[in-house]
Amino acid sequence: MPTILGQNQYGKAENRVVKITRDGDTHHIKDLNVSVALSGDLDDVHLTGSNANCLPTDTTKNTCFAFAKEHGIESAEAYGIALARHFVDSQPSIHRARIRIEEYSWERIAGSDAGSNFIGADEVKHSFVRKGQETRLAQITYSAEGAEGAKFEVLSGLKDLTVMNTTNSEFWGFIKDKYTTLQEDYDRILATSLSTWWRHSWTGETEEGGARPPQWNKSYEQAKKHILQAFVETYSLSLQQTLFQMGSRVINNRSEIDEIRFSAPNKHHFRQDLSAFGLENEAKDGAVYWAADRPYGLIEATILRDGAEQRIPVDMTNL
Amino acid sequence: MPTILGQNQYGKAENRVVKITRDGDTHHIKDLNVSVALSGDLDDVHLTGSNANCLPTDTTKNTCFAFAKEHGIESAEAYGIALARHFVDSQPSIHRARIRIEEYSWERIAGSDAGSNFIGADEVKHSFVRKGQETRLAQITYSAEGAEGAKFEVLSGLKDLTVMNTTNSEFWGFIKDKYTTLQEDYDRILATSLSTWWRHSWTGETEEGGARPPQWNKSYEQAKKHILQAFVETYSLSLQQTLFQMGSRVINNRSEIDEIRFSAPNKHHFRQDLSAFGLENEAKDGAVYWAADRPYGLIEATILRDGAEQRIPVDMTNL
Amino acid sequence: MPTILGQNQYGKAENRVVKITRDGDTHHIKDLNVSVALSGDLDDVHLTGSNANCLPTDTTKNTCFAFAKEHGIESAEAYGIALARHFVDSQPSIHRARIRIEEYSWERIAGSDAGSNFIGADEVKHSFVRKGQETRLAQITYSAEGAEGAKFEVLSGLKDLTVMNTTNSEFWGFIKDKYTTLQEDYDRILATSLSTWWRHSWTGETEEGGARPPQWNKSYEQAKKHILQAFVETYSLSLQQTLFQMGSRVINNRSEIDEIRFSAPNKHHFRQDLSAFGLENEAKDGAVYWAADRPYGLIEATILRDGAEQRIPVDMTNL
Amino acid sequence: MPTILGQNQYGKAENRVVKITRDGDTHHIKDLNVSVALSGDLDDVHLTGSNANCLPTDTTKNTCFAFAKEHGIESAEAYGIALARHFVDSQPSIHRARIRIEEYSWERIAGSDAGSNFIGADEVKHSFVRKGQETRLAQITYSAEGAEGAKFEVLSGLKDLTVMNTTNSEFWGFIKDKYTTLQEDYDRILATSLSTWWRHSWTGETEEGGARPPQWNKSYEQAKKHILQAFVETYSLSLQQTLFQMGSRVINNRSEIDEIRFSAPNKHHFRQDLSAFGLENEAKDGAVYWAADRPYGLIEATILRDGAEQRIPVDMTNL
Repeated sequence: MPTILGQNQYGKAENRVVKITRDGDTHHIKDLNVSVALSGDLDDVHLTGSNANCLPTDTTKNTCFAFAKEHGIESAEAYGIALARHFVDSQPSIHRARIRIEEYSWERIAGSDAGSNFIGADEVKHSFVRKGQETRLAQITYSAEGAEGAKFEVLSGLKDLTVMNTTNSEFWGFIKDKYTTLQEDYDRILATSLSTWWRHSWTGETEEGGARPPQWNKSYEQAKKHILQAFVETYSLSLQQTLFQMGSRVINNRSEIDEIRFSAPNKHHFRQDLSAFGLENEAKDGAVYWAADRPYGLIEATILRDGAEQRIPVDMTNL
Repeated sequence: MPTILGQNQYGKAENRVVKITRDGDTHHIKDLNVSVALSGDLDDVHLTGSNANCLPTDTTKNTCFAFAKEHGIESAEAYGIALARHFVDSQPSIHRARIRIEEYSWERIAGSDAGSNFIGADEVKHSFVRKGQETRLAQITYSAEGAEGAKFEVLSGLKDLTVMNTTNSEFWGFIKDKYTTLQEDYDRILATSLSTWWRHSWTGETEEGGARPPQWNKSYEQAKKHILQAFVETYSLSLQQTLFQMGSRVINNRSEIDEIRFSAPNKHHFRQDLSAFGLENEAKDGAVYWAADRPYGLIEATILRDGAEQRIPVDMTNL
Repeated sequence: MPTILGQNQYGKAENRVVKITRDGDTHHIKDLNVSVALSGDLDDVHLTGSNANCLPTDTTKNTCFAFAKEHGIESAEAYGIALARHFVDSQPSIHRARIRIEEYSWERIAGSDAGSNFIGADEVKHSFVRKGQETRLAQITYSAEGAEGAKFEVLSGLKDLTVMNTTNSEFWGFIKDKYTTLQEDYDRILATSLSTWWRHSWTGETEEGGARPPQWNKSYEQAKKHILQAFVETYSLSLQQTLFQMGSRVINNRSEIDEIRFSAPNKHHFRQDLSAFGLENEAKDGAVYWAADRPYGLIEATILRDGAEQRIPVDMTNL
Repeated sequence: MPTILGQNQYGKAENRVVKITRDGDTHHIKDLNVSVALSGDLDDVHLTGSNANCLPTDTTKNTCFAFAKEHGIESAEAYGIALARHFVDSQPSIHRARIRIEEYSWERIAGSDAGSNFIGADEVKHSFVRKGQETRLAQITYSAEGAEGAKFEVLSGLKDLTVMNTTNSEFWGFIKDKYTTLQEDYDRILATSLSTWWRHSWTGETEEGGARPPQWNKSYEQAKKHILQAFVETYSLSLQQTLFQMGSRVINNRSEIDEIRFSAPNKHHFRQDLSAFGLENEAKDGAVYWAADRPYGLIEATILRDGAEQRIPVDMTNL
């Protein structure tokens, strides 16, 4: 047969694992969407249909739920590390496991929305509203191959974090070719829905032979804050510039992060031309804009710690 | 011709109108999705294709943008009232206008996310993050027909407000027929993604011949808070009971609202059976659940002020 | 309590029922999405949380699957009639049942796609590809109330049938007001994604006291064909005119159908202005268009047999 | 500055280009969604915000429309090749262009749907219905770098082609570990929604210094047919086996294709347990199944011509 099998992986995708923790009357929620992808000695499954080396995807699903009970979910990253290690270490035919996780956040109802003449926030023990903002992401890859102790790769990230600067954004001085009709703009809206992954330098499971693992939840919160803060503080001449500022701020402030990649659609807000109706519509006066759907500028970039290896795939953040 | 024309309406749907207001250096956003539907003397358009009575949908679009500039957007309801009145009062062939609006909310970045060691919230003048929680809804109908002054109908509402009680929910004592296999449950998760419309009693435009219009923004905030508060406080024996408590609380506390309708999918969280792996998974200990997509229970109900007319269509809140 | 309960209904929504029929080696697929909504003596469920009159939504789900096995699925309508009758006739507390069904169609692989040098269509017994065109719809309502034998209402319909005429469409002679900037067009693209429901005159279950029920599958195929044929044959001066032609043709040719309602977004294809690049782009020469997403004109209309009652809700076909 | 810029690209995404060709009275449609991504000397855009090397995304949009007019759209691949070459060859600062295209297919109305007692297919010159089946894909990458003539990489593919075998699929003999509860199945439904990319061996633009380019449209049709045919003919012991058969058949029959990658969600159809109601539900008798949404098995694999390089990114076909 003149054809050969290349890269392959399989597993159960989108396991919707929800774990409630009860701390007396006070409850906590972890709400995850977990996808498992396994690789290894799987030629026979493809070539002959023999499943002797195949752990069923249904079993990977069961394991996701059982691990949530047995080990809890301290963070998406810690939970994913435990799962990935389990599949590789317990099955001789599985050499590599990749766990991808989306996490949805919830907040206590009274804390955010109910207000002062309602029940107090400290009395709300088990009532939540989905926060609805960004989705937190994690990807943990664990490989049995390789001679050294560096076996893990942990990416964290987020998507659907939609931000807008209503001023302090310009776009001018660009190339004009035969097909250019765009006018220069000295006061435009800059809005985007961020999708981003960042890579932790930590690659070893334990402190022996490697650094202590990051505090995953704190690291996430800080990375997100630096991204937002850079968005606030950057006077932007291009969305590319804003992305680079975001990435640099994360790399410079978070020593545990070596690489970050952004995919940022430019969510165009076009100033509506109202001159036919005798109306001025200048940005400086507060203007009316049309929020367009398609097409959109799409800006993608990786920012790295000097000397770090570029490892986040280009297609991981494509829209 | 043995066929006749029945109810018909037309207009431009989903105009994405974004209005920035500048108050010195401090900016504000109103972010709307506006749909226009007009009715009137439109038989010819359908029967012969004559457009002599037809205001183009493109013109209704232009009007949405121009009105945002000319009149501003104090609230979705006030803006929709102005638009609806304009179409009916300015065009003899248009007898009825219905404006439907979705509103997306934004919050200042530092106020919600950036934290204490970052830029202060009071310094963030023009940087926003989309809140991402519920979408606010409004529907304004204005009719030229009728002898009295009661010409407006204003509905407000929201959708995609996802809430969860992790306890204080039971379901038992139900009918068991030949096809019943469900087990009774004395401690289940109750989660739903609320879609709701409510109707204001106000029907006249001015105070003469009618009541003063509600303070639309305050009314919305309060209605939402009462819905959430009822969700927190109800020990639930059925989702229907919870909906009735929500609706009653709104009607009882907000004199401007006469009717409210809910459509509430029961977002099932099934306790995972882990017994095959030697694991107990009881609600009382904090359990692991599977968040299911389909099928889902769908509970719909209208709650009315005694004596009020039921006017919100059943199909308006169907999913 | 000053609040009262209005219209309410409940049931399991979106049961994905797939039934395979084996006719020797030749298989057939019925692929449905079934939603149940029940009404009746349900005040207690809402007011006190007593479920004594409540058939669980889980039971309605089980019934959908069991009926597919016990009675088969000859058509969505016939299956829905059996389900609706069962719920009302078997449960004293249930007085009305509404079954809504979406149906997805499949075709044998070789018949459509594999071509002549492949396996013959008559050899493909159990291999299918999802057709992907319109989704067929049905809604069956059965009510125990009322003195006469007229207890059923059956709507059929479809959605997501996207059609385009690349010429023979004009739009001119419309109202010009202060906000009108649209140019008249004598050769435009007319494209829409049809959503439509039609109502059968049949209201009784048996021939006694009522007419013979329609042949549901043939009726559907013919209604769809008349809609498409009218789209082909109408030289259009407005989308409204095209809709009326479609509806009239269905009513005139199908005696079993009394009423039809359309919701038709005008999927705008704007001729791109290429004059800045020295390029003409006239419709007559074959032009390049930009297919816009939002906003879009939305045209809705009901067409009735003269003397028939208008019963399809306005909001049933809103987008 | 301790941070550096890594891989980056930008351009206008999702340009909805529709081209009508008129051949006398007979019209033809090409309906594309075109995304441009450019790379090159773009450090300044990121580091200082200088746009001197930046061709605006708006210009890339204009170019997509203008090229559709100037050069027509013989196939997505040929159109993308012309676009990619233009950006790199005309702009010194652009060294690499990647064009991604989705294509939606339309068919003449009467040919497929209207039937014999309606207008004949040969009379339907300009009326179309969207086919609704798979979306055709193409990705063209053109790079100015490198000493040899091999500058192009052309991938073709498809997504959302949903297929089902209602028998001739088994799954057994798999690993049983502590978390395995799955039962073996000797007659199951096998259904998937295929997403696939394949790579053409052709890398040069002209025949000089390279092979003649494939006939893109014929190549696409044949590749799709071989995929479908392998699905029909494979008695499946695992979805992996079916994918390998599909891929091998394409590679073996299409000399212009060197590599193909599949991402195939196992669209589970679970046989419903009806035993509680006294009903048997065996596959052999024609059974009732529940079509589940999530979780789903996800099977991904690359199949290569022996000796070919594996170049299609793993993350390009992830769901």
